[in-house]
Amino acid sequence: MDRVPILKIGDVLLVSIQVDMSDQTALQLQDDLAERIVATGCHGVIIDITALDIVDSFVGRMLSTIASISKVLDAETVVVGMRPAVAITLVELGLSLNGIRTALNVERGMELIAAARYDEGGYEPDGDDADAETTATP
Amino acid sequence: MDRVPILKIGDVLLVSIQVDMSDQTALQLQDDLAERIVATGCHGVIIDITALDIVDSFVGRMLSTIASISKVLDAETVVVGMRPAVAITLVELGLSLNGIRTALNVERGMELIAAARYDEGGYEPDGDDADAETTATP
Repeated sequence: MDRVPILKIGDVLLVSIQVDMSDQTALQLQDDLAERIVATGCHGVIIDITALDIVDSFVGRMLSTIASISKVLDAETVVVGMRPAVAITLVELGLSLNGIRTALNVERGMELIAAARYDEGGYEPDGDDADAETTATP
Repeated sequence: MDRVPILKIGDVLLVSIQVDMSDQTALQLQDDLAERIVATGCHGVIIDITALDIVDSFVGRMLSTIASISKVLDAETVVVGMRPAVAITLVELGLSLNGIRTALNVERGMELIAAARYDEGGYEPDGDDADAETTATP
């Protein structure tokens, strides 16, 4: 029971972390997530940490790594469900979770991912910058 | 870390069971779920058991109890993510999870809940069969 399950909901992969993360569990989760992103073509990863009483530097680094891997695979990562006490401890410890987006709950996380996809463009063919790769019309 | 988090996604509450269930954890989960159903007015509960290597009579009874409580509170319960080995063991043990609906994954579970809500009616005042809502042409 040392694998964290990954659930697919629409265009988003959902991970709910409930167990203490060991090195092996964290590595396994990173591997599994990368594989699932490629296999499903999902554009978002939501990591729920409601069950975590504490986020130390190890978990923080794992979240950052997952966010970086997902980014390379064209998926946005959002961490949701952080408890107030966890946020306070994080700041007191000097950990700021750089590069990680957060949201209050799963639903807001999904909205954030949908908004991020929309902002990236690809929907407006007459854009002036940043979407020059969409000009390859047949 | 002995509380199982409950995530709200649209009209559905999602529970991913990853830890060994003790008496206390199971009771706490039942209480929390009942409270959340009432507080949110959700009409569906999805219980993901992907992470469980075995479903014994204790877990089976807990699932049945949750399904019964939810039913009384007007919410449909669907168990998703059961492993093939778990299904085989369940049948060999003579446990048949009476009264519990199952689906392959979260997405199918959500479809099942949506379909169950639809079947209950309330959407088609003059409906004779199931496709009365597609007649609204512009």
